[in-house]
Amino acid sequence: MSAPAIEARLCVRYAETDAMGYVYHGNYFVWFEVGRSEFYRAMVGDDPGSFFRVYGMPAVEASARYHAPCRYDDPIVVITRLEELRSRTVSFAYEVRRDTDGALLATGRTVHVCVDGGGKPCRIPEGVRLALAAGRAESV
Amino acid sequence: MSAPAIEARLCVRYAETDAMGYVYHGNYFVWFEVGRSEFYRAMVGDDPGSFFRVYGMPAVEASARYHAPCRYDDPIVVITRLEELRSRTVSFAYEVRRDTDGALLATGRTVHVCVDGGGKPCRIPEGVRLALAAGRAESV
Amino acid sequence: MSAPAIEARLCVRYAETDAMGYVYHGNYFVWFEVGRSEFYRAMVGDDPGSFFRVYGMPAVEASARYHAPCRYDDPIVVITRLEELRSRTVSFAYEVRRDTDGALLATGRTVHVCVDGGGKPCRIPEGVRLALAAGRAESV
Amino acid sequence: MSAPAIEARLCVRYAETDAMGYVYHGNYFVWFEVGRSEFYRAMVGDDPGSFFRVYGMPAVEASARYHAPCRYDDPIVVITRLEELRSRTVSFAYEVRRDTDGALLATGRTVHVCVDGGGKPCRIPEGVRLALAAGRAESV
Repeated sequence: MSAPAIEARLCVRYAETDAMGYVYHGNYFVWFEVGRSEFYRAMVGDDPGSFFRVYGMPAVEASARYHAPCRYDDPIVVITRLEELRSRTVSFAYEVRRDTDGALLATGRTVHVCVDGGGKPCRIPEGVRLALAAGRAESV
Repeated sequence: MSAPAIEARLCVRYAETDAMGYVYHGNYFVWFEVGRSEFYRAMVGDDPGSFFRVYGMPAVEASARYHAPCRYDDPIVVITRLEELRSRTVSFAYEVRRDTDGALLATGRTVHVCVDGGGKPCRIPEGVRLALAAGRAESV
Repeated sequence: MSAPAIEARLCVRYAETDAMGYVYHGNYFVWFEVGRSEFYRAMVGDDPGSFFRVYGMPAVEASARYHAPCRYDDPIVVITRLEELRSRTVSFAYEVRRDTDGALLATGRTVHVCVDGGGKPCRIPEGVRLALAAGRAESV
Repeated sequence: MSAPAIEARLCVRYAETDAMGYVYHGNYFVWFEVGRSEFYRAMVGDDPGSFFRVYGMPAVEASARYHAPCRYDDPIVVITRLEELRSRTVSFAYEVRRDTDGALLATGRTVHVCVDGGGKPCRIPEGVRLALAAGRAESV
């Protein structure tokens, strides 16, 4: 059994393009967030908002490789997989594809650490950790 | 018969919030664009991208009133109506509502002028104008 | 004596442009915020950050008119004036000009209401109100 | 002799913060761009805008590590170094520091490929390449 790949769909906003005519590279990190939110929603329950009003999951690392550009109004799918789950951190891997032809536009990875309401690193709450664990590859 | 009200749905992104815990006011103008794109898609055809690669519709006016805040992960509906259509300009009115309870979050309005590939104001192409006209109130 | 006009300078970021090659209209509201922050800094003291960690000043209205476009790397000056000051609200007027030739790019206006840490509308703290009042036109 | 480290200064915008109260991680890539623009300005001449209206330098890779958070109105310095220069690509390394105490907030790296007006990868124009080369470490 391989790790669940959760898909989130969006359409390129004009605001996300830049003067080269394509999406600004920094905005892919926002799309990774859209994918990650969908992952939390699928795994943890239908309301990542309530979790994120108590805890934070700030990024400690983020990276992307850009393979092909995309333009205003292109339909996009963000495919998110949980890569590694530890007691306090979780990392995700992303693929961004054009949803018409499946062309790979970008890949990326982010690592997040759980913090409590006061901003202190803490263990990921057990219920959330178990729910996320269901999204891990079998080898874990 | 009243003017068509085209609905576009989105979910609040964490990137769209600010340190007050709610969506930053400037981002509503991006949501108005999401609504407007959906309006073009519904009225003009399924590909506003191809039109906007030849012509531009830069904003000459934009305004918003904020009625209630919204937070990360809130489901949002943007309701877009064509307000006025002239030979070179078009104006839209927007309502932003929380999609769970219909609460009104913001209203707004933008006015756009058609420009050609060289950036010169020009008449809205006849086919597009007629298609948009179908989205006007009956009194027009 | 006329109202102080506080100037803030910035350079157009590539991220702020869109596929038309010019700055996306929604980003002018961020520039208004840059001007407003400079106004607070000039009037209230050198640290708007500390005020805004206790109180909020969410926008209840925002509007802009766009006169001319601008491009990546253009030097910009945002000129901010206090327009009206009440017990709980304050409104600002903005001019955005290209800093090389003074060309008017946009004008705008925002209205803000003071809220306390719990998000409830409240009176603008007296010290802040008096400091802002120094930025009002003489006729007030 | 070590590689020139070009400094760019900015102040955290409220629009750049998120609901955790700190700057959204994706916005650091915009700050890297601010640093890179300053590097081009210092090395290539005072007008990166004119170069970027003919050529593009889209990112093919981007990464960041986040060491400490920062808040609205914090003064920031972005320190940019040229890391590697090839015939068609250039990579930059960044440090983002709080400008009051020098605290390291983030480090990052981006790789860019030169493209011509038609979007095709091409050699970096000789004049630009030589100017950038002056910003390389001696060991290169």
